[in-house]
Amino acid sequence: MTAPFSFTVAARDGSARTGAITTPRGVIRTPAFMPVGTGATVKAMFPEDVAAAGADIILGNTYHLMLRPGAERIAKLGGLHNFMHWEKPILTDSGGYQVMSLAKLRRITEEGVTFQSHLDGATIALTPERAIEVQCLLGADIQMVLDECTPFPTTKDEAKTSLDLSLRWAERSKTAFAAMSAPGQALFGIVQGSVYQDLREESARALIDIGFPGYAVGGLAVGEGQDAMFDMVDVTTAVLPADRPRYLMGVGTPEDMLGAIARGIDMFDCVMPTRSGRHGQAFTWAGRLNLRNARYAEDPSPLDPESACPAAHYERAYLHHLVKSGEILSAMLLTYANVQFYQELMASARAAIAEGRFAQFADDVRRRYREGSEAGNGED
Amino acid sequence: MTAPFSFTVAARDGSARTGAITTPRGVIRTPAFMPVGTGATVKAMFPEDVAAAGADIILGNTYHLMLRPGAERIAKLGGLHNFMHWEKPILTDSGGYQVMSLAKLRRITEEGVTFQSHLDGATIALTPERAIEVQCLLGADIQMVLDECTPFPTTKDEAKTSLDLSLRWAERSKTAFAAMSAPGQALFGIVQGSVYQDLREESARALIDIGFPGYAVGGLAVGEGQDAMFDMVDVTTAVLPADRPRYLMGVGTPEDMLGAIARGIDMFDCVMPTRSGRHGQAFTWAGRLNLRNARYAEDPSPLDPESACPAAHYERAYLHHLVKSGEILSAMLLTYANVQFYQELMASARAAIAEGRFAQFADDVRRRYREGSEAGNGED
Repeated sequence: MTAPFSFTVAARDGSARTGAITTPRGVIRTPAFMPVGTGATVKAMFPEDVAAAGADIILGNTYHLMLRPGAERIAKLGGLHNFMHWEKPILTDSGGYQVMSLAKLRRITEEGVTFQSHLDGATIALTPERAIEVQCLLGADIQMVLDECTPFPTTKDEAKTSLDLSLRWAERSKTAFAAMSAPGQALFGIVQGSVYQDLREESARALIDIGFPGYAVGGLAVGEGQDAMFDMVDVTTAVLPADRPRYLMGVGTPEDMLGAIARGIDMFDCVMPTRSGRHGQAFTWAGRLNLRNARYAEDPSPLDPESACPAAHYERAYLHHLVKSGEILSAMLLTYANVQFYQELMASARAAIAEGRFAQFADDVRRRYREGSEAGNGED
Repeated sequence: MTAPFSFTVAARDGSARTGAITTPRGVIRTPAFMPVGTGATVKAMFPEDVAAAGADIILGNTYHLMLRPGAERIAKLGGLHNFMHWEKPILTDSGGYQVMSLAKLRRITEEGVTFQSHLDGATIALTPERAIEVQCLLGADIQMVLDECTPFPTTKDEAKTSLDLSLRWAERSKTAFAAMSAPGQALFGIVQGSVYQDLREESARALIDIGFPGYAVGGLAVGEGQDAMFDMVDVTTAVLPADRPRYLMGVGTPEDMLGAIARGIDMFDCVMPTRSGRHGQAFTWAGRLNLRNARYAEDPSPLDPESACPAAHYERAYLHHLVKSGEILSAMLLTYANVQFYQELMASARAAIAEGRFAQFADDVRRRYREGSEAGNGED
């Protein structure tokens, strides 16, 4: 008998909570950060090291995988877990976000979205049903409904129209998922509504009416600023049921995540630790460092003496040399160190919540980041 | 008391021999293949994995390291071993080869060679004395005399003139090494003479007169063809003393190495396994494979079931996908698999020599490579 999907909260500290999502492929400790494995690889990392860094779950991008190597091919090869040597849970997005950001000539209708592949120009249709089919072919443990990612900024009227379409697609996604999914897999709804409080509430309530085992907050961290993002998280988590996991999509910086955890968010994903690692940027307990900086040329201190990551014990002078030389090893070491820092941050947050000292913990980290971080976010 | 540098031959099989070089930093089992760690990194590999693959020694490039990050800086940071997290022996070349192949505006005089850095155009002088000084600053366990890498093809007169200069530089290198080196470090001479049998013999005899604890054969695998290369190796090893290690520089393919081992060579280095790994090429026990080939798109078999390397157990379809997508993980996995294959080839050669069946072993590998290899050598 396959273990069902479930979520339990073990401890609360203000609105922050810590607990666990149980899936047939393993337990996800929350708050959880999911490293992004875009094209069936967390870039520049061996999958064993992603697990060793502490990740319980990774994210796969449906858009990328359906284009290359193709969902049917991955299914034929035994599913995404087998394909990429990752046995623990995988969450896949619906593909909608990348269609908006990467694909050419996209056209949205009631039926779905048609677009041209950014790789070869092929015309491809993505409907709510196809998005679920692809995620089932991949074998994703947690799947996402297809939604329209409302552009930012947008008028309230446009946000409302977009929201209504996303709700109809959410219903169709749920129906398709019921027909196609395997036991123990779960489908999450996605709250939209741009920066409009009443639309966010309306979206959350409508999704609750449809009924999902988990809810994501989408369409944030797109330029609205941290205050507006936190306001929307506050509004949304106030409506969402306490017994379901809450996932803030595409977030974020350590400061963003700490603020969101304080507001009741349980799950995150972001390319920041991996992408930054490929561009000479390190997240450490002492702040964000730019290893390209000449001040590190003869610095014999380890990248992050407070991290347990083997990669964080390499000397800054060596990492500076590797970054300046464009060596692949710089991406390997910094990505590993960053991914593990994000996991250690989540583990420390979980412990702090369990011990009722989360606010103090978050303040400490924020202060160290404010005082110790260097310019540049690695997103070049 | 520091262990001295020594070489012992444990078994012979025809002209092939197996044994061990002992250095203060560890034992090098021979025949040995040295992965190339150009800029203080074996490209795309964690140093732990280079050791796990079976390498007893790696090669560092004096030219690259003196330009970036600089030999004095590496010395200040505790030496090359400490800098790059590699505790076992390191052999460094003299820098001469890269001056010829990479630097601009080089001018050779009796004193040495002056060139412009390919990185920033700075004018730099490399003399036999400076080449040794740099290698001592790096802390190399085995160092090489500065020689002039005779171009190929060349006339006999030019080869003789070049050879004579290299012999004068070899004497100066030895004098400098005696003054600067640390206990247990060793300096090897380099036999030149292009494809001229009598010049090779003359070079070898003159170097023996100067006296070195090991001898390299240089200036081969530069376009002369395998037959000519083997002829020169035959001529040279016939003259070189049996109780000193023999190092064939910049070689090579599995077939080249097997032929050279049969002729009494003990050490090799080559960028082939690492460079090929970054270009989708794999060395396996079944031959050389081009993972970019469409035939692997749905091939669920492991890269090399006969290899003990964890990277060689990834499925060909997945590696094909990573190569086609330009993912860093493809370079990581294929480089690891290739470096370990080269080490396994050496380990099997050592065992075959010890058991008196080297000729049969080499024939088997050559046949499999002839029948199983695909076009393309990864040197794009």
